[in-house]
Amino acid sequence: MIASRTETRSAGAAAPAETTPFRGLPIRPELAHEQPYGAPQLDVPVLLNVNENPYAPAPEVIATIAREVAAAAASLNRYPDRDFAALRDELADYLALESGVPMEPFSVWAANGSNEVMLHVLQAFGGPGRTALSFAPTYSMYPEYARDTHTRWVTARREDDFGVDPAKAAAAIAEHRPSVILLASPNNPTGTALPLSTVEAILDAASATDPATPAVVVVDEAYAEFRRAGTPSAVSLLARHPNLAVTRTMSKAFALAGARVGYLAAQPHLVDALRVVRLPYHLSAVTQAVARAALRHRDALMAQVSSLRGERDGLVAWLREQRGPGGAPLRVADSDANFVLFGTFADRHAVWQGLLDHGVLIRETGPDGWLRVSVGTPEENATFRDALTDVIQALTHVTEETA
Amino acid sequence: MIASRTETRSAGAAAPAETTPFRGLPIRPELAHEQPYGAPQLDVPVLLNVNENPYAPAPEVIATIAREVAAAAASLNRYPDRDFAALRDELADYLALESGVPMEPFSVWAANGSNEVMLHVLQAFGGPGRTALSFAPTYSMYPEYARDTHTRWVTARREDDFGVDPAKAAAAIAEHRPSVILLASPNNPTGTALPLSTVEAILDAASATDPATPAVVVVDEAYAEFRRAGTPSAVSLLARHPNLAVTRTMSKAFALAGARVGYLAAQPHLVDALRVVRLPYHLSAVTQAVARAALRHRDALMAQVSSLRGERDGLVAWLREQRGPGGAPLRVADSDANFVLFGTFADRHAVWQGLLDHGVLIRETGPDGWLRVSVGTPEENATFRDALTDVIQALTHVTEETA
Repeated sequence: MIASRTETRSAGAAAPAETTPFRGLPIRPELAHEQPYGAPQLDVPVLLNVNENPYAPAPEVIATIAREVAAAAASLNRYPDRDFAALRDELADYLALESGVPMEPFSVWAANGSNEVMLHVLQAFGGPGRTALSFAPTYSMYPEYARDTHTRWVTARREDDFGVDPAKAAAAIAEHRPSVILLASPNNPTGTALPLSTVEAILDAASATDPATPAVVVVDEAYAEFRRAGTPSAVSLLARHPNLAVTRTMSKAFALAGARVGYLAAQPHLVDALRVVRLPYHLSAVTQAVARAALRHRDALMAQVSSLRGERDGLVAWLREQRGPGGAPLRVADSDANFVLFGTFADRHAVWQGLLDHGVLIRETGPDGWLRVSVGTPEENATFRDALTDVIQALTHVTEETA
Repeated sequence: MIASRTETRSAGAAAPAETTPFRGLPIRPELAHEQPYGAPQLDVPVLLNVNENPYAPAPEVIATIAREVAAAAASLNRYPDRDFAALRDELADYLALESGVPMEPFSVWAANGSNEVMLHVLQAFGGPGRTALSFAPTYSMYPEYARDTHTRWVTARREDDFGVDPAKAAAAIAEHRPSVILLASPNNPTGTALPLSTVEAILDAASATDPATPAVVVVDEAYAEFRRAGTPSAVSLLARHPNLAVTRTMSKAFALAGARVGYLAAQPHLVDALRVVRLPYHLSAVTQAVARAALRHRDALMAQVSSLRGERDGLVAWLREQRGPGGAPLRVADSDANFVLFGTFADRHAVWQGLLDHGVLIRETGPDGWLRVSVGTPEENATFRDALTDVIQALTHVTEETA
């Protein structure tokens, strides 16, 4: 038997025993001491660690998926539609509805997860001799995409509230002259959405730095559906900006992390550039069928999203009433996503471990002292709140005893 | 509506109308005039152009797929098993059975089509400053993998019978010092399988050229299940060669081109290098379920493969009895695959077009004057034979009239 979900070999976080695991192979030197990326996949009752949607697909969604896949299976001996015309049609429809912005199918691209979408962007517009710029703290996969495409990776700092200062961003763009700028909004792991004025200032700075071929600006809206009322989407800027791309995913709002469907909206000439670097037939007929099946249930799924937004706001409010082991009120980042960043803890690992001992897995990520918890079902969130109360109390005793 | 399967925009072969389609975008210069790869996807009664298995999945296969996908769908809100443990187990079982060589799950890797497997290989072992070597004529996607990973692409020539001369191969390896050597066997588009002695000679040459870190030698066995009796698989060499990898696919023998499942066998330390560069969760839970469902029906699917081998041998024999428009007997390459390369024609495009006018789509590929036809059902092959007879006769008349 191969590694189970709990075995260390499968966990990604654990190092292999050998010190020179690739001895005798011409592996690229920059990879020789790397570990495969990924959060530990542990078997724990309450999984609030990777920002999954806690609601399993409903029986009617499963039935539609099974029916559509059976229909697709009848011609699985044939290669899939390389340009996934029907899916692009339906993604464009959905995005137009969600954002209120007209959208044509040629403006939409899709791949196996938004990480493959991002790989396509960096293959087309990054690469050797080029630079990708982002604003830290941000999504920990970005530097891996850069590494895998030989793109130089540079970050500027976010502000204390995890926002991006437009003037400092412009200065960073002028200094580093990136060909790709990655803006996560809502940002992972902080939950911070950028105002459109900031996105526009960054687009202006890209044009000012290189008027002929400004950097491609990617706004990563993986968590967009969870944004609070009044928070806009950068989709509304697409018509005016030929170098703008907005990425989305079906992993979160559509509760489809296991199906691996990410997508992107941009003007068609930008999408055409991605078509040059994609592997032919990259999106299977089955993946296309599953995505279309889920899109058909979008009303019910968006109702779940709305309920998760309410749970998220409740969690933020509750966390802001808590005090840490040292007695200071917790800091809690504003969140437009389905997770909340909170802290700060002198020993965040002790809090993380304490929660795990209570059967609640969250993520030890973000700036020093902070922790990230995904929003679960009301029951899971209650378990998390009880566990955190216990853990902080226990750590408070330790603090007092050793004080 | 987006492009249909017959619209030129979707066809890949047609150039977009604009002369500078990516104007104003920082696309990499080497991509600026490239077209997306892919054979035209035309709506034609007899499709013998992309080496698909002509047999659609049987009702019992479709039922298993639908059942397994429904089971997987129940937890699609969660990310898939990143290391696809169950699928690796079952692929290892299958490969051991097929090749007669013991195989452990950690020796197996899989991805969305063998083209993604190959991308992983070149990301880990190719890249800027490195060279990939192959032997032409060979699979037309290889240079694209090299381009997309910034790997220098070099080919040496195959012999007139499309085999590889070991001494010339060794000389090419010594001259170009590749870090990756790609050997398609059976080769596409020629159908030629390499004797194990040639693969071993190439492995020896790689070690002689760089004893510390010899090139990774990839034997691409996408069509292995179609090989004739007595033709060996390079899987039997894996235990003795830590720098050898053998790639396979479920697209052909398993009639699963639409599901995109390619895989690779190698010693575990080579597989671990691919784990570093893969995108996390690259293989969806649905893809894993579909592949496992098809593997469960392997006996029935292998019976179909056996029948296709018989059809292939019949097609080769029939083609060898035919004469071209000029009166010379056709040349037909030996084939261990599910396609046949035949020729040579002074005007191969006229033959290709004539067949298309008869509703039979084959592929205009390979060396000048040759054409490639995939092996279809007995009925499809009969239609092809009748159409080819007509087309050659018509072209013979033209030749005589203009002579």
